[in-house]
Amino acid sequence: MTGHTTTAIITAFRDSPDKGRGLARDMQVRWALEEAGKPYAVRLVSFDDLKQPGHRALHPFGQIPTFEEDGLALFESGAIVLHIASTCSGLLPDDPVARARALAWMFAAHSTVEPPINDLEAAGFFERDRDWYGERAQIAQDRIRRRLVDLSAHLAQDEWLDGGFSAADVLMVGVLRRIDGSAVLREFPNLVAYVKRGEAREAFQRAFAAQLAVFEASRAR
Amino acid sequence: MTGHTTTAIITAFRDSPDKGRGLARDMQVRWALEEAGKPYAVRLVSFDDLKQPGHRALHPFGQIPTFEEDGLALFESGAIVLHIASTCSGLLPDDPVARARALAWMFAAHSTVEPPINDLEAAGFFERDRDWYGERAQIAQDRIRRRLVDLSAHLAQDEWLDGGFSAADVLMVGVLRRIDGSAVLREFPNLVAYVKRGEAREAFQRAFAAQLAVFEASRAR
Repeated sequence: MTGHTTTAIITAFRDSPDKGRGLARDMQVRWALEEAGKPYAVRLVSFDDLKQPGHRALHPFGQIPTFEEDGLALFESGAIVLHIASTCSGLLPDDPVARARALAWMFAAHSTVEPPINDLEAAGFFERDRDWYGERAQIAQDRIRRRLVDLSAHLAQDEWLDGGFSAADVLMVGVLRRIDGSAVLREFPNLVAYVKRGEAREAFQRAFAAQLAVFEASRAR
Repeated sequence: MTGHTTTAIITAFRDSPDKGRGLARDMQVRWALEEAGKPYAVRLVSFDDLKQPGHRALHPFGQIPTFEEDGLALFESGAIVLHIASTCSGLLPDDPVARARALAWMFAAHSTVEPPINDLEAAGFFERDRDWYGERAQIAQDRIRRRLVDLSAHLAQDEWLDGGFSAADVLMVGVLRRIDGSAVLREFPNLVAYVKRGEAREAFQRAFAAQLAVFEASRAR
């Protein structure tokens, strides 16, 4: 399925459309790797590369990130973070009940909270030129708000989603960062504080600096 | 977080809006339980119950299904199916590489393939009365189609997503069943055949019959 390698290799955009803000999906994988203290290499890809058969063999939906290590090739950032969390320490509790709960929150981040955020983003790309875009965006934002109401009520004044920091927080903070600075997120001060708490972690900062360096190098070319 | 119990308890709709077609999210959990040969009980809930604090304590986003067993309370159908697959045999390969790949496909089903399908469904609920609904639905359908093109190319003539039948197929067949009979799914005969292959499994049929019995009982009241 992939060549054998001793260091994990992930893919990331050579020239990310997020301009170094760390919103592309490699960011959560980098963050998880930094939390785990696991070294990794990055193979940069262009948008054109995503369509090539070589990349499609790694990622059937032609996206980033991918993860390769010792004959294993993975796609889906949630699954990659779960793999890292399952094979390294520090990202999932040992207690089976707490661990299963953390997995529920990992799925919740990517299956329940992120989809309406992605939908509003997709509407911005593909529907902005329609005269009904304003109404459509409002409805999409209301769907985001309903998720945030529930998430904010659950988090309350807790530090992290379910007990100690876990891989679920890596994914959920990553999801919320996609709407960071938006009016809808600012309606929920505890979620804003939660995002800042994630960003304050040293592992996050190392991951952020690494992806920013890629963007700055691409600008310098 | 929940009472202690020896038999797993899941929640499902007392009166599902899918009219017994097995499209509500309890179906995949029932199917996984049947594949695993694990007995379970069902607590039926109404839409009003979803908003109550008791249910919110089990499911922060006020949905079904939930799963309770021996002091563990879970939500998110993907996470519940993963928990069943991790604690029973028959739903995940033992080989660690094959297992990680199956997890990638579980995330792909709920994070990549299902969201545009849910989006079209949500548009049908909340935007059907707008005069721009036709255009909007067309764009949403194109987003579904792009995922199906990739999924169909990956599956090719294989029976299941990645080697033998796994929990990933439970989730992916469940996702595709939400658009079963639609013109867009019919464009991909190998995906139609894949859904039928899943539905032909005895465990699927037992699960389907169980959820249909709930609907029929609700009609008989």
